[in-house]
Amino acid sequence: MNGGNERFQPVSGMEIPRFAGIATFMRLPHVALPDAGDVDIGLIGVPWDGGTTNRAGPRHGPRQMRDLSSMIRHRHHALKLSPFELANCADLGDSPVNPVDVDDGLNRIETFFKSVVGKGVLPLAAGGDHLVSLPILRAVGEREPVGMVHFDAHTDLWDSYFDGFKFTHGTPFRRAIEEGVLDPKRTIQIGIRGSGYDAEDRDYGAKMGVRIMDIEEAVELGPEKVMAEARAVVGDKPAYVSFDIDCLDPAYAPGTGTPEVGGFTTREAQFMLRGLRGLNLCGADVVEVSPPFDPSGYTALAGVTMMFELLCVMAEVQAGK
Amino acid sequence: MNGGNERFQPVSGMEIPRFAGIATFMRLPHVALPDAGDVDIGLIGVPWDGGTTNRAGPRHGPRQMRDLSSMIRHRHHALKLSPFELANCADLGDSPVNPVDVDDGLNRIETFFKSVVGKGVLPLAAGGDHLVSLPILRAVGEREPVGMVHFDAHTDLWDSYFDGFKFTHGTPFRRAIEEGVLDPKRTIQIGIRGSGYDAEDRDYGAKMGVRIMDIEEAVELGPEKVMAEARAVVGDKPAYVSFDIDCLDPAYAPGTGTPEVGGFTTREAQFMLRGLRGLNLCGADVVEVSPPFDPSGYTALAGVTMMFELLCVMAEVQAGK
Amino acid sequence: MNGGNERFQPVSGMEIPRFAGIATFMRLPHVALPDAGDVDIGLIGVPWDGGTTNRAGPRHGPRQMRDLSSMIRHRHHALKLSPFELANCADLGDSPVNPVDVDDGLNRIETFFKSVVGKGVLPLAAGGDHLVSLPILRAVGEREPVGMVHFDAHTDLWDSYFDGFKFTHGTPFRRAIEEGVLDPKRTIQIGIRGSGYDAEDRDYGAKMGVRIMDIEEAVELGPEKVMAEARAVVGDKPAYVSFDIDCLDPAYAPGTGTPEVGGFTTREAQFMLRGLRGLNLCGADVVEVSPPFDPSGYTALAGVTMMFELLCVMAEVQAGK
Amino acid sequence: MNGGNERFQPVSGMEIPRFAGIATFMRLPHVALPDAGDVDIGLIGVPWDGGTTNRAGPRHGPRQMRDLSSMIRHRHHALKLSPFELANCADLGDSPVNPVDVDDGLNRIETFFKSVVGKGVLPLAAGGDHLVSLPILRAVGEREPVGMVHFDAHTDLWDSYFDGFKFTHGTPFRRAIEEGVLDPKRTIQIGIRGSGYDAEDRDYGAKMGVRIMDIEEAVELGPEKVMAEARAVVGDKPAYVSFDIDCLDPAYAPGTGTPEVGGFTTREAQFMLRGLRGLNLCGADVVEVSPPFDPSGYTALAGVTMMFELLCVMAEVQAGK
Amino acid sequence: MNGGNERFQPVSGMEIPRFAGIATFMRLPHVALPDAGDVDIGLIGVPWDGGTTNRAGPRHGPRQMRDLSSMIRHRHHALKLSPFELANCADLGDSPVNPVDVDDGLNRIETFFKSVVGKGVLPLAAGGDHLVSLPILRAVGEREPVGMVHFDAHTDLWDSYFDGFKFTHGTPFRRAIEEGVLDPKRTIQIGIRGSGYDAEDRDYGAKMGVRIMDIEEAVELGPEKVMAEARAVVGDKPAYVSFDIDCLDPAYAPGTGTPEVGGFTTREAQFMLRGLRGLNLCGADVVEVSPPFDPSGYTALAGVTMMFELLCVMAEVQAGK
Amino acid sequence: MNGGNERFQPVSGMEIPRFAGIATFMRLPHVALPDAGDVDIGLIGVPWDGGTTNRAGPRHGPRQMRDLSSMIRHRHHALKLSPFELANCADLGDSPVNPVDVDDGLNRIETFFKSVVGKGVLPLAAGGDHLVSLPILRAVGEREPVGMVHFDAHTDLWDSYFDGFKFTHGTPFRRAIEEGVLDPKRTIQIGIRGSGYDAEDRDYGAKMGVRIMDIEEAVELGPEKVMAEARAVVGDKPAYVSFDIDCLDPAYAPGTGTPEVGGFTTREAQFMLRGLRGLNLCGADVVEVSPPFDPSGYTALAGVTMMFELLCVMAEVQAGK
Repeated sequence: MNGGNERFQPVSGMEIPRFAGIATFMRLPHVALPDAGDVDIGLIGVPWDGGTTNRAGPRHGPRQMRDLSSMIRHRHHALKLSPFELANCADLGDSPVNPVDVDDGLNRIETFFKSVVGKGVLPLAAGGDHLVSLPILRAVGEREPVGMVHFDAHTDLWDSYFDGFKFTHGTPFRRAIEEGVLDPKRTIQIGIRGSGYDAEDRDYGAKMGVRIMDIEEAVELGPEKVMAEARAVVGDKPAYVSFDIDCLDPAYAPGTGTPEVGGFTTREAQFMLRGLRGLNLCGADVVEVSPPFDPSGYTALAGVTMMFELLCVMAEVQAGK
Repeated sequence: MNGGNERFQPVSGMEIPRFAGIATFMRLPHVALPDAGDVDIGLIGVPWDGGTTNRAGPRHGPRQMRDLSSMIRHRHHALKLSPFELANCADLGDSPVNPVDVDDGLNRIETFFKSVVGKGVLPLAAGGDHLVSLPILRAVGEREPVGMVHFDAHTDLWDSYFDGFKFTHGTPFRRAIEEGVLDPKRTIQIGIRGSGYDAEDRDYGAKMGVRIMDIEEAVELGPEKVMAEARAVVGDKPAYVSFDIDCLDPAYAPGTGTPEVGGFTTREAQFMLRGLRGLNLCGADVVEVSPPFDPSGYTALAGVTMMFELLCVMAEVQAGK
Repeated sequence: MNGGNERFQPVSGMEIPRFAGIATFMRLPHVALPDAGDVDIGLIGVPWDGGTTNRAGPRHGPRQMRDLSSMIRHRHHALKLSPFELANCADLGDSPVNPVDVDDGLNRIETFFKSVVGKGVLPLAAGGDHLVSLPILRAVGEREPVGMVHFDAHTDLWDSYFDGFKFTHGTPFRRAIEEGVLDPKRTIQIGIRGSGYDAEDRDYGAKMGVRIMDIEEAVELGPEKVMAEARAVVGDKPAYVSFDIDCLDPAYAPGTGTPEVGGFTTREAQFMLRGLRGLNLCGADVVEVSPPFDPSGYTALAGVTMMFELLCVMAEVQAGK
Repeated sequence: MNGGNERFQPVSGMEIPRFAGIATFMRLPHVALPDAGDVDIGLIGVPWDGGTTNRAGPRHGPRQMRDLSSMIRHRHHALKLSPFELANCADLGDSPVNPVDVDDGLNRIETFFKSVVGKGVLPLAAGGDHLVSLPILRAVGEREPVGMVHFDAHTDLWDSYFDGFKFTHGTPFRRAIEEGVLDPKRTIQIGIRGSGYDAEDRDYGAKMGVRIMDIEEAVELGPEKVMAEARAVVGDKPAYVSFDIDCLDPAYAPGTGTPEVGGFTTREAQFMLRGLRGLNLCGADVVEVSPPFDPSGYTALAGVTMMFELLCVMAEVQAGK
Repeated sequence: MNGGNERFQPVSGMEIPRFAGIATFMRLPHVALPDAGDVDIGLIGVPWDGGTTNRAGPRHGPRQMRDLSSMIRHRHHALKLSPFELANCADLGDSPVNPVDVDDGLNRIETFFKSVVGKGVLPLAAGGDHLVSLPILRAVGEREPVGMVHFDAHTDLWDSYFDGFKFTHGTPFRRAIEEGVLDPKRTIQIGIRGSGYDAEDRDYGAKMGVRIMDIEEAVELGPEKVMAEARAVVGDKPAYVSFDIDCLDPAYAPGTGTPEVGGFTTREAQFMLRGLRGLNLCGADVVEVSPPFDPSGYTALAGVTMMFELLCVMAEVQAGK
Repeated sequence: MNGGNERFQPVSGMEIPRFAGIATFMRLPHVALPDAGDVDIGLIGVPWDGGTTNRAGPRHGPRQMRDLSSMIRHRHHALKLSPFELANCADLGDSPVNPVDVDDGLNRIETFFKSVVGKGVLPLAAGGDHLVSLPILRAVGEREPVGMVHFDAHTDLWDSYFDGFKFTHGTPFRRAIEEGVLDPKRTIQIGIRGSGYDAEDRDYGAKMGVRIMDIEEAVELGPEKVMAEARAVVGDKPAYVSFDIDCLDPAYAPGTGTPEVGGFTTREAQFMLRGLRGLNLCGADVVEVSPPFDPSGYTALAGVTMMFELLCVMAEVQAGK
């Protein structure tokens, strides 16, 4: 390790075994938000599943992801860089939440992330269900709508559930477009698949200009061409990355609430995330890890490895500024 | 089998193996509510955990309990009776719910159970988290406040959570008392234990006249004396029974969201439930079975066995009318 | 949803959450066989593993598959159709079985499926172990031997086990050929692999004209060419599809009794099943899902997703008649 | 260790760690039946569940029980004796079985155990489902009917299942009585509980003179008086012990196919088995351990600990001869 | 909450849900050892299993125990006190360890605990295997040998393993006695049971004056008399408490490496720990929680509940000084 | 089966079900080392994880691998040969180990394998953690340094851990090179990936001439070219194969201590192992299977299938001599 701010280096497994110590994201120091002045990238848990219409559990995601993130070391073997040398990274703890009220929960998360963004910290969040992306987008897209590279089995562009309820984990991006914090024309959704109730979500997306790429098309194109198109769609302006763990096949990520067979392998996902290099990333999340459906934790391991891939790309951007 | 309405008899495992067939509660016929005119006791799922402040999952309770209830046969070995000969029993399916809105969820459940009660059907519900008891009490206690025998590790008499939120699985009985559907002076809580935030719940209960019996006292008295006191507390008027599966020790019921070690054995619980015989029961529930924390299902088996014990007592009451 | 018989539509997860309600296949209505007059395709469980020589458990398959099938929605995202609009689909419950006698078990299943076929209903079965395919073939192949597209790690063409026992899950297709209900020359087996006792099964298959395609060949050809050959083998006459879940790799389907590593991914399997479009299908099954070896249920999810792929192809055929 | 035949001593965990080595029962030497001439007590697996009408799996019992039996050491802490000093004990491997034919399976097991008994070896069997007790009783009771101390949740005295099938895990003792290998008047059943289809099994037992002691009575009497009565019932003549693991509560033994809540603790069971001292035991079994329902293995640990308790009592008898 | 140092209060689940936030013991503040000047009682993890001769895993104990300790609230329901009002409690993180060298591991732990004791902090440790008690005893017993109340299935008084290796989880108390940090005459071992290799451990204990109380005796005496004797044995001078989770029955604590059936219930254990009130406790540990053998975590929940019982007793002592 | 020494044939599942019998590797006869004179290839367990710096458990590998190896039959479906016809294969039991001392453990294993090699037996070992490869290499490379084909996510070329400890599962090949038993210039490492502490391991490897092939390169080349290069690197002289199960993706092998997402599929691994045909193999191992992290056992199944692939290649070599 020959670079990087000493204060923000992770604990090494060569010195303290990885199973030891209080679990923070990637064994980084825990820094409370008020003290985060010189943090460049903040790893943040959002332990909330208030929008979950299906199987329960993503509220437990951040804790299991912190636990498994002890497996992450300093240096990316393929990119040949350490994000911890390029940027000051820290675990900012968990966002406030409210497990029994959706509106209040959304407000608490939005307030927290606006404060993060206000301090100049790039957020890298661990959900929680996919509804948590909405309040984060409200924060990162407050000044102008952002673009988005979205990996998922589902579009999450539905209008409402259960006869008129607008805020669920199936609706965040429709709300974000309506609220003007997400630019649909600079949004691409990759890996969509699985049976649907009807095509209303896709029709809305198509109408608004969202690029929806089904798994079949993504497989045929291969990771490289997929990401070339993704970069073309989002362009140079600020873009957000949302990685729903259910874009992966259930063999790779059984611990999630709405699994769809026939998904990406982790290898494909890693190759695609590396294709984000050079984009102007304003934040990212990995969501829908649901520990009760995978006590073994390898879903969470996949999730934090994706966070590490994202962190590397974000740190490069940060270092280049 | 020499009695009972043919239409309402469970499928026998001597004819069709217990692992076969679509799973209904205790292999009873599924009867839609509009057709439930001659049903005496309705077994009803309430797949809802909108009030859960802690570990997720009771929304999955009814399905796993239906699955494991195939283990239940016709005749109670100790009471030497078959509830299915004494009363017309049926699976009325699940109550409508709303997983993303507490108020709407409570309303849907209340409306359903008022309809059940309106048809003269005694409800025996499978939760769901403990907040589901509130809308059921609104139904059974609509005309006059009911008494209650309550088995639990927790009083569920708290006022509010997260700075003012009044409807959670820790508050149902405070709300029920405030709303006048539960008579605190005819209420006994058995098995209370575990660390608490403070004593505010107990103080409220004491003030209102609720009889709170800690596990230590219950163990010292033994099941027989405990139930003698329970019968004395609730008296002859209509009484409800609420059985939170976490009254059992986690060794007997690991599949629950707020386990507390040092609880009842199933044997003790069965002996206590048999002590309810003769009470004027107006309904009952078994709640807080959370399948994600017990894929093996023996928590659900404990839950449905308690439902069978309750069903026997309710059927006797029904038959005696 | 703008088509299809209202009576035979599945419950929507936009109205009733997917974890709610009594579990039927794909949330379809349960219709008893005597009332199945206007059903086009019947989804049927066969909870039987009387032929299992190895690890126990497929008797529990139908129940877990019903549970997980709540994840299936209406419309196929890639085929852009809803089977429920094209054909009347229903859950016909479970076939009668006998867990303690192989001969009697085979008879009960055969009788049931002959009745299904007699009513003009196309059967789509969920096993059970692979021996259940034999009595179904006796029903669909009663008038003339059918062709078969068979996905599996094993040929199931053995002669006998344990010194002369002829009916096991390793022998169904040898029996079916001998009995004249399966046409070996119109049969293709795809994905065969794993160590074998000797080559007696393959020699028999070769002698009778069965096309055996090992996993290595299938991988080299790719799904498209594999299915071109499959279509050529079975031709235009009635053909059955048998999908043994162990054709998938154990990473995708750990819940099975005789796993063989090095198998298909679910993505490959889906692509292959879509290649069945246009064939004259007379029935299909998905077998060998063994829940005790996968409490998490993602094997069952893979199984019911394959059932949905098959259902789409069968409904197209049905609609085209 | 200051006694006992060197050849028949178990491997010590002080020398070779318990997780090491090929797993035999209690780390005893494996001796093939033809070489068992100087074996006094033979530990034998019966990997068969041909009679299982309910949840699958006891065929896997012997292997998991061998694995967990590595936890057993040499000396009983309370009886202050080592069975391995008192008698020559060995693992005789598994009985032949047939997983796809009940009649043939019963014959293979009977033949094997008759050979064991013929060599003067006392059998201590690990099931397998409860039907395996029948062919063992045919061997030990061949010359005259034996008495039996039977620990179970169920009487297993039913007549038949599924419209006339006589050999299931619910019927072995009715068959054994009918066949004259079990003396009903010298038989006691302890721990019976759980709902039943009707009372036909109990009525038969009562008529034949079987002493049926429900769990409620056993709990009230306490282990000491229970066993006093058991000793009185079986008397001085040869007696068999059959221990169905489901006599234990599911909290202590979740890994079984027909669990009934409200059962014995392992502590109670150990105390009762010690009460067998001095009886003229002619054999014993521990059955219905079903590993698929308890991957953790503590059910199997309970099972092999009961085998060790039985072994101590049998070795004392053997040494006293 | 009306007392106690604000800085050392745990996070309340009424404000922040229990599944949220970075997991520390009982949601207490994490204080680094150099800053622990005004800490009265330090909760410390010892993630080390270098002495484990049997099944692997206690190195993972502290992390899972921290996770589950979120379930613990402030106030003891039966003792009617909050330890956090009586003493300054904090999570001091984990002791340094070395997973690949026993001698170095012992040294690192001893050094750390000597520093803890040197700061006047009472240690309450979470293991780790039972060998971790030895270096802690070296710290607390440095000036004079301490007494001990020891709950366990095993005496851990063996001399050596594998032909002369002296430091294992089966030998810590023999070493501690030999080293003069533990006073055998003021030591009581409660709950001993399970088969043994021979009686060499007990003979040594008896010779040195250790009071060994088998589970049979403890059950017969009952918790109250057991603890009366324990108090008599250890007297008024400093005493340590060591709680091996395997003193509990495997039904209550499956997640441990050397389970022995027939153990204590958690209820019995809690009653016994409350009987420690008034003793002059100099430290305590809860060891042998092995998460890989209980992914569900209820063993860890039992462990941290025992830590809370111990904390209450220690805080009372502390407050009385 | 028409060849091969009768004494060394595995038990057939057509005769004795695969779940039956005492579990040996691939159901081969157990032969004690002193009697192994005419054994050609010895399958040997090394139940030891003394070098594990991370998650615990490979000590349990051999037992679970023996259990799952019952799934392996006689004949390789693609290579069209039976190793048991080409060479005398036997289970030689487990190597002696010492779980509480690294140096002594290494010595015991080295001594055992030197004896194996001394008898002219080719060793095929099942670990244990990766440090077990070191003492085996000391045996097979005693006379001259061997080459190696090494499949792994990690190089295991680190110098030391925890401030100077030289013998861990991250250091075996550095030690082997230093000791002159492994020829770095004839060594290739395939599948390397995952974050690293720094590049010190790779720098050392590069300096010594080890060919390190990252997963990305291996994926791009494809199995055929990868193995062409492997064969070129190791050449004609004796070569060892070390297969760390974590070279596989966690979806295929969750039961391991240091999983890295993005790894090989089992299909890729099988294809690569078949590419070893014709090499002059002097031994092989499959290591790091950690059963506590995969109770379902499919990681072990993957492991033993790789052992079977290796066995086929080794038997061909043996037969050609």
